[in-house]
Amino acid sequence: MGDYHAIQWIGNTLRLIDQRELPRDLTHLDYDDYHEVAQAIRDMVVRGAPAIGITAGYGMALAARQSWATGVAALRADLIEAAEELRAARPTAVNLTWALDRVLARASDSTLTHPDLLREAVLDEAHAIFEFERQSNLQIGINALPLVPDGANIVHHCNTGPLATGEYGTALRVITAAHEAGKQVHAYVDETRPRLQGARLTAWELQQLGVPHTVIVDGAAAHIMRTRGVDLCVVGCDRIAANGDTANKIGTYALALAAHTHGVPFYVVGPTSTIDMAMPNGDAIAIEERPAHEITHIRDCQITPDDVHVANPAFDVTPAQYITAIITERGVARPPFVKSLAALMSEQRRA
Amino acid sequence: MGDYHAIQWIGNTLRLIDQRELPRDLTHLDYDDYHEVAQAIRDMVVRGAPAIGITAGYGMALAARQSWATGVAALRADLIEAAEELRAARPTAVNLTWALDRVLARASDSTLTHPDLLREAVLDEAHAIFEFERQSNLQIGINALPLVPDGANIVHHCNTGPLATGEYGTALRVITAAHEAGKQVHAYVDETRPRLQGARLTAWELQQLGVPHTVIVDGAAAHIMRTRGVDLCVVGCDRIAANGDTANKIGTYALALAAHTHGVPFYVVGPTSTIDMAMPNGDAIAIEERPAHEITHIRDCQITPDDVHVANPAFDVTPAQYITAIITERGVARPPFVKSLAALMSEQRRA
Repeated sequence: MGDYHAIQWIGNTLRLIDQRELPRDLTHLDYDDYHEVAQAIRDMVVRGAPAIGITAGYGMALAARQSWATGVAALRADLIEAAEELRAARPTAVNLTWALDRVLARASDSTLTHPDLLREAVLDEAHAIFEFERQSNLQIGINALPLVPDGANIVHHCNTGPLATGEYGTALRVITAAHEAGKQVHAYVDETRPRLQGARLTAWELQQLGVPHTVIVDGAAAHIMRTRGVDLCVVGCDRIAANGDTANKIGTYALALAAHTHGVPFYVVGPTSTIDMAMPNGDAIAIEERPAHEITHIRDCQITPDDVHVANPAFDVTPAQYITAIITERGVARPPFVKSLAALMSEQRRA
Repeated sequence: MGDYHAIQWIGNTLRLIDQRELPRDLTHLDYDDYHEVAQAIRDMVVRGAPAIGITAGYGMALAARQSWATGVAALRADLIEAAEELRAARPTAVNLTWALDRVLARASDSTLTHPDLLREAVLDEAHAIFEFERQSNLQIGINALPLVPDGANIVHHCNTGPLATGEYGTALRVITAAHEAGKQVHAYVDETRPRLQGARLTAWELQQLGVPHTVIVDGAAAHIMRTRGVDLCVVGCDRIAANGDTANKIGTYALALAAHTHGVPFYVVGPTSTIDMAMPNGDAIAIEERPAHEITHIRDCQITPDDVHVANPAFDVTPAQYITAIITERGVARPPFVKSLAALMSEQRRA
């Protein structure tokens, strides 16, 4: 994919693109302290549900290295503590918890009888998480291909490309895979306020990849559907409940309603690591409320009057009834999702 | 209302608040050349359909003063030329055309036999237009009062307050009139990308007027309806077709769809000067496409990558079927609007 890497493990250092500076500057930050990794997730140096999970995996690898423990029990205790700190960094995306639980499960392997073996296993699991997401993304593109007509106009919300997922992308992979397969596709890129991930990151990634696109304000998508015609919408996901209700970036639900009105297929796209079968529906998904300055300021420029009151929910929940299908690496789930997601999740992983 | 005046006629000069600089600076610009007034409308020094109409009326008064004509026929010819220039400044709002046609009709009065009488009449008509909008706004507040429950949470899009209308406001007047009447109301203020009239202007006006409010990104309104409950939505209008289809600031249509889904009453609010009975439905309303930099930049800060392709429709059309009622100074029109608007428009103006 693009000639850039959102997440790299180099030597014993985690290197992240500082996504807050894109597209103005392509700069990297290096981490060897897991506390700072938790802060980087909170501050959105790295964002995107799968990318957060991968980053947290490497955060655990750093925590294992940082630990002074000389016995495996003490090291496991330190890892549990680190996992709790990383888990608290962002509440909505389930991939974070999924990745941390994967690492902790691996660390609990009783055959790891020496701390250094345990440290090695934790790093290996972090690499495995990254590789899982990489392969998932590729398979998502393959699974989605029949759903994208040649000549399609596609509305995309937020950022779900290599930056958000590690290497290929989820919802954006649906677009780039169709493009690579020779289909003429064009993306309407929702700018995605407040943090403008669409205008800043998705537009930049589509430029890198040579896919035709047009940036619009979020409020224009419904109008574009009504006046220009749109063939499908693709969005990522931060947590999918067992019934298909999906938490994703704020504005997703409004887009789903517009798509529903216009009979435009609305696809949620993500790896199965985003599906939370323990969550029966979307009502209990915690919606992160982020700081007011994301709305009152754009970079250093203050938009609003001083002291204005702001609500800044970072995510919303789209009820399953507005979702045409959920595209995962294991296949395409269609309503009723209670059945189709359960079937997907009970399948043995083929890889 | 607030201790500020969007539009003033002082001596023989038109004074406008430079709305582009709010809320950072409250500065005024003075005009004695109608060409510059046309430019001010294009550049959105002044915006809001009624305010544009009032401004254009005074632009005509300036044109009359600027004309070197020594006979009434030549002066009328100059006025027609000036009206065409002003009319072309913004295509979507009908109030602009309505105001210009009012001035031209007044100028065609055959009893005006001397150029100075004609100049005086043109200025008088400009004042009358302003007074019409002022009185309309007050009456709109009165007509809307029964529709606003005590304790209401109200979503408001764009800016429709004194800045947009001359003195009291249209959709915002629904909120401020309820507030003045002692009802506890709270406004969710859509920030209204790309030009952020909600975050910049509406929040500032509600602060001046002491009305509780919360700024949200446009994409959050549907989520707020689903999770917190909203009692009504109020939006302004730039042109209402005879069947009720309404052109208004981009994002209005998406908001209407969200309101429709949640059973939230969706009110379009404006003076009858916004109703264009010559337009049978919304399909033929010209939608202004504005410059890309409104999306790519916020003030001097560039958001997007260089050379990104952008679509920037400034307005959208909300089909009548999603509109609960249209609130005007002459009364509240309800579906079917073809009948109710025709009835409103055929009424004699009582003032």
